Amino acid sequence: MPTTLPATMQVVQLTEIGRPPLVVQKPLPMLGDTDVLVKIAAAPINPSDLMFLQGRYGLRKPLPVAPGFEGSGTIVAVGKAWWLRPYLGQRVACGTPDDGDGTWAEYMRTPAMRCIPLQPKVSLAQGAMLIVNPLTAWGLVELSHTGRHAAAIQTAAASSLGLMIVRHARRMGLPLINIVRRAEQVAILQAEGATYILNSSEPDFMNRLADLSHQLKATIAFDAVGGDLTGTLLTGMPNGSRVVVYGALAGDRVYVNPAELIFRQQQVEGFWLSDWFRVTSLPRLLQIGSQIQSTLHADFRSTVQATYPFSRVNAALAHYQRQMSAGKVLLVPDA
Amino acid sequence: MPTTLPATMQVVQLTEIGRPPLVVQKPLPMLGDTDVLVKIAAAPINPSDLMFLQGRYGLRKPLPVAPGFEGSGTIVAVGKAWWLRPYLGQRVACGTPDDGDGTWAEYMRTPAMRCIPLQPKVSLAQGAMLIVNPLTAWGLVELSHTGRHAAAIQTAAASSLGLMIVRHARRMGLPLINIVRRAEQVAILQAEGATYILNSSEPDFMNRLADLSHQLKATIAFDAVGGDLTGTLLTGMPNGSRVVVYGALAGDRVYVNPAELIFRQQQVEGFWLSDWFRVTSLPRLLQIGSQIQSTLHADFRSTVQATYPFSRVNAALAHYQRQMSAGKVLLVPDA
Repeated sequence: MPTTLPATMQVVQLTEIGRPPLVVQKPLPMLGDTDVLVKIAAAPINPSDLMFLQGRYGLRKPLPVAPGFEGSGTIVAVGKAWWLRPYLGQRVACGTPDDGDGTWAEYMRTPAMRCIPLQPKVSLAQGAMLIVNPLTAWGLVELSHTGRHAAAIQTAAASSLGLMIVRHARRMGLPLINIVRRAEQVAILQAEGATYILNSSEPDFMNRLADLSHQLKATIAFDAVGGDLTGTLLTGMPNGSRVVVYGALAGDRVYVNPAELIFRQQQVEGFWLSDWFRVTSLPRLLQIGSQIQSTLHADFRSTVQATYPFSRVNAALAHYQRQMSAGKVLLVPDA
Repeated sequence: MPTTLPATMQVVQLTEIGRPPLVVQKPLPMLGDTDVLVKIAAAPINPSDLMFLQGRYGLRKPLPVAPGFEGSGTIVAVGKAWWLRPYLGQRVACGTPDDGDGTWAEYMRTPAMRCIPLQPKVSLAQGAMLIVNPLTAWGLVELSHTGRHAAAIQTAAASSLGLMIVRHARRMGLPLINIVRRAEQVAILQAEGATYILNSSEPDFMNRLADLSHQLKATIAFDAVGGDLTGTLLTGMPNGSRVVVYGALAGDRVYVNPAELIFRQQQVEGFWLSDWFRVTSLPRLLQIGSQIQSTLHADFRSTVQATYPFSRVNAALAHYQRQMSAGKVLLVPDA
C-alpha cells in the first residue's frame, strides 16, 4: 500500500442490531490478491440498508461492521493480481464485499469484480447509486430475456427501482404490467408513460391481471412485496409462469396455493444482486456498467433529496425513513 | 370401430361435485386419430380420485364425467394413425385423458401415449395400479438425477407412494431422507429398511434436518404435504435447493420465508404426472413401463384390500376412506 494512506479511517459502525450506528476510527483493511481499496466519496441509504441495520436482511455479518451496500470513490490501492494495475486512480461505483465492512466508511476493501469504472461525465454523487437499483433492474429484465418471456409483471412499480424497471423494460422492448397499491401511484406511472398499470386495491384486480397477463403472455413476475401478493400473481398468470421474489415489503411470508405449483407448473424463486454478481463475468459487468452510465440521466436516474456527513448518520437515517419516496439520502465522509 | 362393440356402456358418473357418483349407461366415445379404446378390466381408487370427487383436484372437467385416473384393460379399437395397429388386442395399463371420461367405465378413450402394454406375467389387477404411484415415484426420482442432486428428501414417506420412492431411490443409488409425522410411521420405514428417517413431531427435527441435508447434500425435496412443512424444508436445506410440491395433504397453502428465496437461491415448484407424460417420449415411456413391471412385485408393489363392481362404487369409496392405509380398493365392471 502507498505510504500516503492514513493509518486509520472514519467508519460508521453497527455494534448491535437495532442500536443506532456510531462513528469510530479504525485501521485500514488488508487487501486480498484481487481486492481494491476505494476511498469513498459518497454512499446512499437504501431500503436494504435499513433492513440490514434492523437485522432483517438475509446476509448477516459478524459485528461490529460498517453498513452500506454501495457507493462511489477512487481506487487508491490494489491487490497483487497483475490485471489490477489499471484500476489504480480510477473513479468507480462500488458494491460491498459479502464478508466485510461496507461503504459507510472513509475507505472500503472490495473485490475488483464489484467495481465499475465511472465515465468522465458521471459525477461521484451520481455514481454512488449505480449498483443496487440499476443492476437489479438490469438483472431482472435480463431474466425475462434469457427465459424467453414475451412480457413481464412487476409489483411495487412506483418505487425508485420500479420506475427504473419501467424505463429499462421499455428500452429493451419488453411489455410490462405494473402493479401498484394506491391511486396516486397509478398517477406516478402514468406520468412515467407506463402502458399497463393495475391497482391491486381495486375490486376487479384479479380478473384484469388474469386477462392482461394471458393476452401479453406475461410468464415472469418481479415481486418486491411477498405475502399474499405472490400467490395472487401465480393464480392470475398463465400456466408455466415464474414469480421472482426480490423483496419482502409486505413483511410477511410468501403464500402460494399448492395447486398452482402442481397443476399449472407455476414456480417461485428469488433474485439477489450478490448472486447476479457471482454469475456475471467481469467483461460483461463492465459492459453493462457502461451502458447504464450512458442512460444514467434518463432510464437509471435517481433523485438525491439530502446529503449528510458520516458523523450525522443517525440524522440522515431519520430523514430518509421519514420520506423514503422523496429521493435518496447520501452519506459522505466528514470534511 | 369393429361391430362387436356394444352401442352403450356402463359408466360411473359424477354429475355434481360433492354428490355420490351414479352408475349410468352412455354411448361409447369417438376416437381421435391417435386415441385407443380400452375395455376396462380394473381401476383403483386413489387419493387423487377422492380430491377429484370433492372438486379439490387441480384439473376440473365439464360434468357429468366418469372419474378414475388409472386402470387396466384390453385395447379393442384404435384411431387412424398407422402406428396404432399393433396396439389392437394388447393388454395395457392406462391413464385417463385430461379432457374426458376416466377409467371408472366399461370402455375408455385415451391417447395411445397414456397406455403401457402389460407383460404376460403381470395380471390386469396388478396392471391397474401401474401408472399413478409408480410413474410419480419414477418421475420424482428422475428429477433428482436430471438436476444432479446428490441426495433427496421426501415428506409423507410412509404413504404407499412414499414407500415406492424409498425402494426406487435405493435401487437408483439415491440417498433419501424420509420425513414422517408419527412414531408408528418411523417403524414402517425401519421395516422397509430406510436409512435416514426423521420425525417432524420431534423437538430437534429442524436441527436434524439441517445437519443431515447438508451432510448428504440433499438439495431436492419431494413434498406431498405443503403448508408450513414446505417452508421448513427450504429453511433446513442447503443453499440453492428446490422443493418439488406434488401433493397438498396439509390442506393448506404453502408458506415460504422470502429470505430463503432471495438470499439462499431456494426454489419452489410443482410436479404433476400429466405434465410428465407430455414431456416423456413414447419409446421412453414404454421403456420405463417395462422396467416398472419387472419390479412390480418388489419396488413398485401395491396391496389390494378389496374389489367392488362399478354398481357398488359408493360402498367402495366408503370402504377406502375408512382405511386408506390398508391398501388399494379396486373397481371392476359388473359381471
